[in-house]
Amino acid sequence: MAKLSVVGKSVIRTDALEKVTGTAKYTSDVDLHLPNLLYGKILRSPYAHARILGIDISQAAKLPGVEIILTGKDVPSQRFGQYVADQHILTRETVRFIGDAVAAVAANTPETADEALQLIKVEYQKLPAVFDAEEALSPDCPAVLHPDLASYERSLLAYLGRDLPGPNVHTHHRFRRGNVDHGFQKADLTVENRFSTPRVAHCQLEPYNSFAYLESDGSLTIWSSVHELFGATQGMICKLFALPPSKVRLRTHYIGGNFGARPQAEKFAAFLAIKTGKPVRVTYSREECFIDGLNRFSTSIYIKDGVNSDGTLLARQIKVICNGGAYASLTPLLARNASFALSLYRIPNLKWDAYGVYTNEPCSGPFRGFAIPEVLWAIEQQMDIIAHKLEIDPVDFRKRNIVREGEENVRGEITHSIGAQECLDKAAEWIEWGKPSPASSGHLKAGKGVASGIKYSMTDAASSAIVKVHCDGTVEVRHGADEVGQGANTILAQIAAEEFSVPTHKVKLVWGDTARTSYDFGSVSSRTTYSTGNAVLLACQDVKRQMFKIAATKLGASPQDLETRDGKIYLKQSPETAIMVADLCLPGAGCLAEGAELLGRATFVKPGSGEDPDTGQGKILTSFYSYGAQAAEVTVDTETGQVRVLRFGSSFDMGQPINTKLCEGQMEGGAGMGIGTALHEELIIDKGQVLNPNFTDYRLPSTGDIPSGDNMGCMIAAVPQRDGPFGAKGLGEATLVATAPAIANAVYNAVGVRIKDLPITPEKVLNALREGRNEL
Amino acid sequence: MAKLSVVGKSVIRTDALEKVTGTAKYTSDVDLHLPNLLYGKILRSPYAHARILGIDISQAAKLPGVEIILTGKDVPSQRFGQYVADQHILTRETVRFIGDAVAAVAANTPETADEALQLIKVEYQKLPAVFDAEEALSPDCPAVLHPDLASYERSLLAYLGRDLPGPNVHTHHRFRRGNVDHGFQKADLTVENRFSTPRVAHCQLEPYNSFAYLESDGSLTIWSSVHELFGATQGMICKLFALPPSKVRLRTHYIGGNFGARPQAEKFAAFLAIKTGKPVRVTYSREECFIDGLNRFSTSIYIKDGVNSDGTLLARQIKVICNGGAYASLTPLLARNASFALSLYRIPNLKWDAYGVYTNEPCSGPFRGFAIPEVLWAIEQQMDIIAHKLEIDPVDFRKRNIVREGEENVRGEITHSIGAQECLDKAAEWIEWGKPSPASSGHLKAGKGVASGIKYSMTDAASSAIVKVHCDGTVEVRHGADEVGQGANTILAQIAAEEFSVPTHKVKLVWGDTARTSYDFGSVSSRTTYSTGNAVLLACQDVKRQMFKIAATKLGASPQDLETRDGKIYLKQSPETAIMVADLCLPGAGCLAEGAELLGRATFVKPGSGEDPDTGQGKILTSFYSYGAQAAEVTVDTETGQVRVLRFGSSFDMGQPINTKLCEGQMEGGAGMGIGTALHEELIIDKGQVLNPNFTDYRLPSTGDIPSGDNMGCMIAAVPQRDGPFGAKGLGEATLVATAPAIANAVYNAVGVRIKDLPITPEKVLNALREGRNEL
Repeated sequence: MAKLSVVGKSVIRTDALEKVTGTAKYTSDVDLHLPNLLYGKILRSPYAHARILGIDISQAAKLPGVEIILTGKDVPSQRFGQYVADQHILTRETVRFIGDAVAAVAANTPETADEALQLIKVEYQKLPAVFDAEEALSPDCPAVLHPDLASYERSLLAYLGRDLPGPNVHTHHRFRRGNVDHGFQKADLTVENRFSTPRVAHCQLEPYNSFAYLESDGSLTIWSSVHELFGATQGMICKLFALPPSKVRLRTHYIGGNFGARPQAEKFAAFLAIKTGKPVRVTYSREECFIDGLNRFSTSIYIKDGVNSDGTLLARQIKVICNGGAYASLTPLLARNASFALSLYRIPNLKWDAYGVYTNEPCSGPFRGFAIPEVLWAIEQQMDIIAHKLEIDPVDFRKRNIVREGEENVRGEITHSIGAQECLDKAAEWIEWGKPSPASSGHLKAGKGVASGIKYSMTDAASSAIVKVHCDGTVEVRHGADEVGQGANTILAQIAAEEFSVPTHKVKLVWGDTARTSYDFGSVSSRTTYSTGNAVLLACQDVKRQMFKIAATKLGASPQDLETRDGKIYLKQSPETAIMVADLCLPGAGCLAEGAELLGRATFVKPGSGEDPDTGQGKILTSFYSYGAQAAEVTVDTETGQVRVLRFGSSFDMGQPINTKLCEGQMEGGAGMGIGTALHEELIIDKGQVLNPNFTDYRLPSTGDIPSGDNMGCMIAAVPQRDGPFGAKGLGEATLVATAPAIANAVYNAVGVRIKDLPITPEKVLNALREGRNEL
Repeated sequence: MAKLSVVGKSVIRTDALEKVTGTAKYTSDVDLHLPNLLYGKILRSPYAHARILGIDISQAAKLPGVEIILTGKDVPSQRFGQYVADQHILTRETVRFIGDAVAAVAANTPETADEALQLIKVEYQKLPAVFDAEEALSPDCPAVLHPDLASYERSLLAYLGRDLPGPNVHTHHRFRRGNVDHGFQKADLTVENRFSTPRVAHCQLEPYNSFAYLESDGSLTIWSSVHELFGATQGMICKLFALPPSKVRLRTHYIGGNFGARPQAEKFAAFLAIKTGKPVRVTYSREECFIDGLNRFSTSIYIKDGVNSDGTLLARQIKVICNGGAYASLTPLLARNASFALSLYRIPNLKWDAYGVYTNEPCSGPFRGFAIPEVLWAIEQQMDIIAHKLEIDPVDFRKRNIVREGEENVRGEITHSIGAQECLDKAAEWIEWGKPSPASSGHLKAGKGVASGIKYSMTDAASSAIVKVHCDGTVEVRHGADEVGQGANTILAQIAAEEFSVPTHKVKLVWGDTARTSYDFGSVSSRTTYSTGNAVLLACQDVKRQMFKIAATKLGASPQDLETRDGKIYLKQSPETAIMVADLCLPGAGCLAEGAELLGRATFVKPGSGEDPDTGQGKILTSFYSYGAQAAEVTVDTETGQVRVLRFGSSFDMGQPINTKLCEGQMEGGAGMGIGTALHEELIIDKGQVLNPNFTDYRLPSTGDIPSGDNMGCMIAAVPQRDGPFGAKGLGEATLVATAPAIANAVYNAVGVRIKDLPITPEKVLNALREGRNEL
C-alpha cells in the first residue's frame, strides 16, 4: 500500500471547534421559529399488564391550549416492529408494561400538555403479569402478552428457529457444530455455570427528542435525536403512516450520544404533526428515557464447556434467555447475533440456543456491543474458571484455543484479519501479567484479570455515498451515516482527504439529512468506518475517474497517467503538466460541459452467504470481526466489598486505524462504559416498576471510578482488513465487550470469589466473601 | 413527435396552493431565530457628484445597540462590476449619484441603525456633475465620473468597440451589414427621427432584501431576494470577499417578482455578517428600491431608414445612447444586445452604434426585454411612419420586410422557428384591423395600432440539472433556475412529468439553493424554459438510461425495449412485463447495488459563434428568437390628452407551449407592464434627484388601466423550436416589447399626433394636439 499521509494520523476532529465553543447544534437547538409550535407529551400506563376499559378525555380536552388528544383508537392499524409487528404507536386495548404509551397530547406549552395528561381518566382492568424471563418461557405461563400473535408471526426471520416453546417466546435462534454430546463424552473436564446480566440504560446525554412538521408541499420533515435516519427511522415512519420515502425527510445535526438508542420520540412527533397540521416537539423526560428508552435487556446464560486436560476446548453448550420486555423490538436479532461471541475460540462441538421472551418489563433494544458483552460475561469468566481448574495460565489457555488467521471459525467462516492473539499479548504485557499486584494493603486486596473480546459487524447492510468535487477543489462528501459523537465525520473526511491528497479541511461534509444524502443502513454494528468508509472511498474513485477523463482530453494524456493533489490534476510522470479542477468546467460557469457536476457515487455492501437454518453455519455471516483483550488491576475492600479499578488496559485490532486518537478515544470510552456496567449500572425493576430512572439513583461511573493517565492503557494491534478502506475495520462496540469479565477475573484473582451476576456490587462481593465462596 | 400528455396542458401551478393560502415563503419570511441578529442600513450620498473629505462616525458608534459602522476604507480593494470593475461596496473617495452607498451600519434594531445613520457626519466637496447622456458623451464634458479608469478598462468585452469618444463612455457597440450610405442613395424615401425612453423601475413587490450569516464551519450563507443565484450573485460575493464557491451558499425560497432586478442587498448583508460574525438582515426601503434598484436606463435613439417606394427596406442607420448612470453595471451588455431588435426585418444595409455612458444619475441595470423595448419603441413607430408616407398598410409593410424561416437575418444568423408573420396576422385579425374603431364619441377619438416584436435569448449560458428518481417513483428535479413567479417550477415539472409519463404531482422540485442544485446561469434572457428545460429533459433521459440498464438485466430484456410510466418500467411490446422503480434498489435499502442513487445529470448550453468585432456578424449569436405582435385599440381624450387602452391583443410564438395558461399569463402580464411603460411609468429625475421614489408618485397601471376579459386577447402562434424541449422556446420578456409602439401607433391613428418620447402622458398628447403636430 502506498504511503499514507492523512489516514492513520490523529487529525483534529472536524467538529472540535463547534463542540468546544458550544456552537454545535443538536436537534433540541433547532429553532425554526415556526408559528403554532406545539409540545407533545405521552400518557403512560401505571400498570404492568392491564386491559383498557375506557378513556375519558373530556376534561383534558377542555383545558385551554390543548390542541389534540390522541388515543389508541386514533392510531393507524398498521403495527410496527422490525421483526415482529407487535406494537401500535399508542396501545389499543392492552397495556403491557409500566410506561406503555396510552395517549398523546399536543398543547401550546409543555406545562399545559402535562396538565392535560393529569386530566385524562383511564379505566384499567389488571391482568396477570410476568417479569421473569424463565417463568415467561414456560408454555404454562399464566400471563400471555400477545395472545393474538401466532407463533409464525413471532418468528419472521428465516434464521430463527420455529419451535417456540411457549406463547411468550418470540425468538428461538440456534446453531450447531459437530456433536456436543460426543464432545462432552471425550472431555477430561466439564464445567457448567449460570451467569446473568441486568437491564442497563444507554444514558446518552441528549434525551430522546424530535421535532416534526409538515412542509408547505405536504411532505413531512422530522428532526431526530438518534442514529439510523434511513432504514430504521424513515422506514418506520413511512410504514406507519403509509407515506412514500420521498415525502418523509429525516434530519439531525449532531447527536448527543447514542450507544444503540433507537428512534422513540420521532413517531409521536410525526403522528401529532400529521394530525394537527402544526409543528410538534416531543422531548422525553430523563425518567422516560430510562423507562421507555429501549435499553439493554437482561439475560440468563447457561454455559457448559468440555475441555481436555491439555487445555483444548472440545465442546460448548450455551443457552441464552433474553428478557426483551413487552415488545419484540430488536430482541430477535440480538438473540441471534449474540452467538457471534462464540467465534472467538476454536471449538469443534457446539450447541447454541437463544430465546427472546416477552415479559411485562419495559421494551428493550440494542446497546453498544449488541448482546456480545452479555455472552462474553459468561464465556470469559468460564475460560478463567477452566484454566484455574486445569492449572493452566488463563492467558495461555486462551491463546491455545483462540481463532487464527485462515482458520474456519465455529460458524464456518474463513477467518481473516485476526489480531486476537497479539491483542492478548499486549494487554497481558501492559498489566504485567504474572507479576503480583503491589497494591494489596491491609483489607484492600489487589488482583489482576484479563479477558479477550470479539465483536462482529453485520453483512448485507448497504452504505452509499456521493462525493461532489467543487470547482475550487473542495471535496464534498455526502454520507448517510450518523455522527453520534464517535467521530464518523472525521474518519470519512480523512478517507476522502487521503484519496484526493488534500488536507481534511478541504473536505466538506454533508450528513444528517435524507433529502441531501443517499442511503446508509446507519451507524450501527461498528460498521461506519468499514462500510460507509468504503462507500466514500469508492465514490471518490468514481469522481476521480470522471475528472481524469475530462482532464486527459485537455492535457492530451491518458486518464491512467493522471493523479490529483491539492485540487490539481497532473501527469504522474511530469507533475508540472497540470490543470486545476476549475479548468474542467465550462469557462465562467460552475458546471461541466456535460453532466452538470463532478459527482461520484457508490454503494458498498458486503453480501452475506446466509446461514443454514438448522446448524447456523455459513461461509460469510459477518463483514469482519474486531478482536481485542482487556486487562484490569483492581483492589477489593474486604470490609466493604467495594471494587476499585486501579489500572485498565485495552488492546484492540481495528485493522489500519484511520485516526489513532479517535481509536484511543473509543478504547477509553468503552473501558469507562464497561467499568460502569461491571461495577455500578443496573436498572432496578420491581414487578415491572423501574425504581431508579434518574441519574441520582442509576449510578453511572464518575471520573473517580475510571483510571486515567498512565493507568489507562490503549493499545493498537493493527491487522489490516483486506477489503476495508485503507485496511480499516470497525472498533467502537468492541471496546467494552471484555471489560466486565476482565474485572470479574481480577476480583477473583484478588479475593477468590467469583461474581456471576452483573454488576459486581459491594453487597454481592461482601456476601460472597462472607459465604466463603471460593469457587474455581 | 409522440403525443404529449402533460406538456401543452394548462396544469395548475406547482405553487398555487402555497401562494393562494399565503404559506409560500419569501426571503423576508426566513426566520431561523438566530441569536444576535443585526439589521443593516446604508448611508447614502445626498450629492450627485462629490469628493468625500472626511467621515466622522464617533457619535454614531457611541449609540447603544450599534454593532459596527463600515465605510469605504473598510471595503475590499477588489471592485465589482460584471463588465467594468468600477464600483466598491461602499464608495471610497467619490460619490457619483444621489443614493451612492457611503457607509453601512449594523445594529440590534432597524430603528437604531437608522438613528446611527443620522449621526454619521460626512464632509463633502461638490464636483461638477453631468446628467444628460448626450452631454456626457462629449470628450469635453467637464464632469468625469471615473477618471481613474483607462478606456481599455471600460471596454472589456471583445465585441465592444474600443474607439470610445469620451472619458465618460464605457461602451461602444457596433454592427454593420452592407453599405448603409449606398442603401440610402438607392432609396426612394429616407425617414429620420429621434426617439427617447425614460428611466423605469421594475417595481417588483418584494423589496430588495437579504439575510446573511456565517455557518459554524465558517462558510457564508446568504438568502437572496433576486434571481441569478449562481453566476451573478454567488460569483460576485466570491470575487468580492475572495471566498471559494464551496464556502458561499446562496438561497431563496420564492421570489416576489423580478423583471430583471439584480442582487443589491446581498453584498451589504454579506459584508456586515463577515465583519461582525453575526447574522445580518438588510432590507431596502421602497425609496431605496427606486433609487438604488438598478432600474431601466434612459435612452436617446436616432434612427434613419431608407426604403423603396414598393415598401422594401433598403437601409437603416441607428444610434442608441444609453444613460446607464454612475456605474457601468450591465449597460455594456444591454447596449450590445439591444441590437438584436434589428433582427426582425430583412434589411440589406445596416449601421448600428450603441453607446453606454456614465452620468451622475443612479446606476441602472437590466429590465424585462433587456433594451429591446427601447429600440422597438423607435423601430415600430418608424415602420408606421414609413408605411403612412408610402401609403402602404402598416401591417402589409411589415409583412413585406419581416424575416422568414431559413433566411439569413441581419446579423448573419440562419433563422429558424419564425412565427412573426403568423403573429402579425393573428393580432391584426383580433383587433379587426382595417375596420375603424366604433369607440369614437365626442372628444374621445378612437384608433388602432399594431406593432411587431422580437426578443432573442442569449447563447453560451449553461443550465444544468440533476434528476433523482426516488424508489417510490417520485421524480425529483434539482434545478438552478429561479422561480420569480413566472412559473419556472411548473414548466420544469411538466417537462420531467412528460418524460417520465407521471402526473406533475409526482415531480418534486428542489431549487433556490446553490448547495443542493447545480449551476444555472439564471432565469434571465427568457431562457429557463429552453435552457433549463433542456437540461432537465437531458437529465431525465440520463437517469432513464440508468434505470433501463438495471431493469433490463432484471427483466431479461434490452434497455431500448423498455419504457416507463407511473413509476413502472415495462417492456414496450408487452407492458405487463414490468417492475417498479423500488425493485431496482437493493432489497430493503433505499439505494442501488452500485452507484448509490438513481441520479441523472445534464448540462445544456447553446454555444454561440461569437461575432465579428467590426461587423457584428456571426453565425450563431442567439439561442433562439421569440416573435410576436401586439395590437391596441385606444381612445384619446382631445380635451385632456388622456389615452385609454380599450382593447389589447397579443400574439406570440414561443414554440410548443409547455403550459398554455402560463403563456397566457405572461402575455397578460407583459401587456400590463407594457401599458404601464407606454402611458404612465417614468422615474422623474431632477439633477440626479429621483423625485418620485414611491408608489404614490410613481404611477403603476392599475386594473382600471388594463383591459380585461374579452378586451385582453392572448394568442399563441406556435412554431416548434428544433432544439427546444418538446419544441419549446422562451416567451416571458417578449410580451411587452411591442406594447408601447402599438399604443403610440394607435394614438396616431386616433388623433394624428405622434409621441416619440415615452411615456405617452396626457400633457405630451395635449401639447402635440395644441401644436397641431400631425406628422407622418
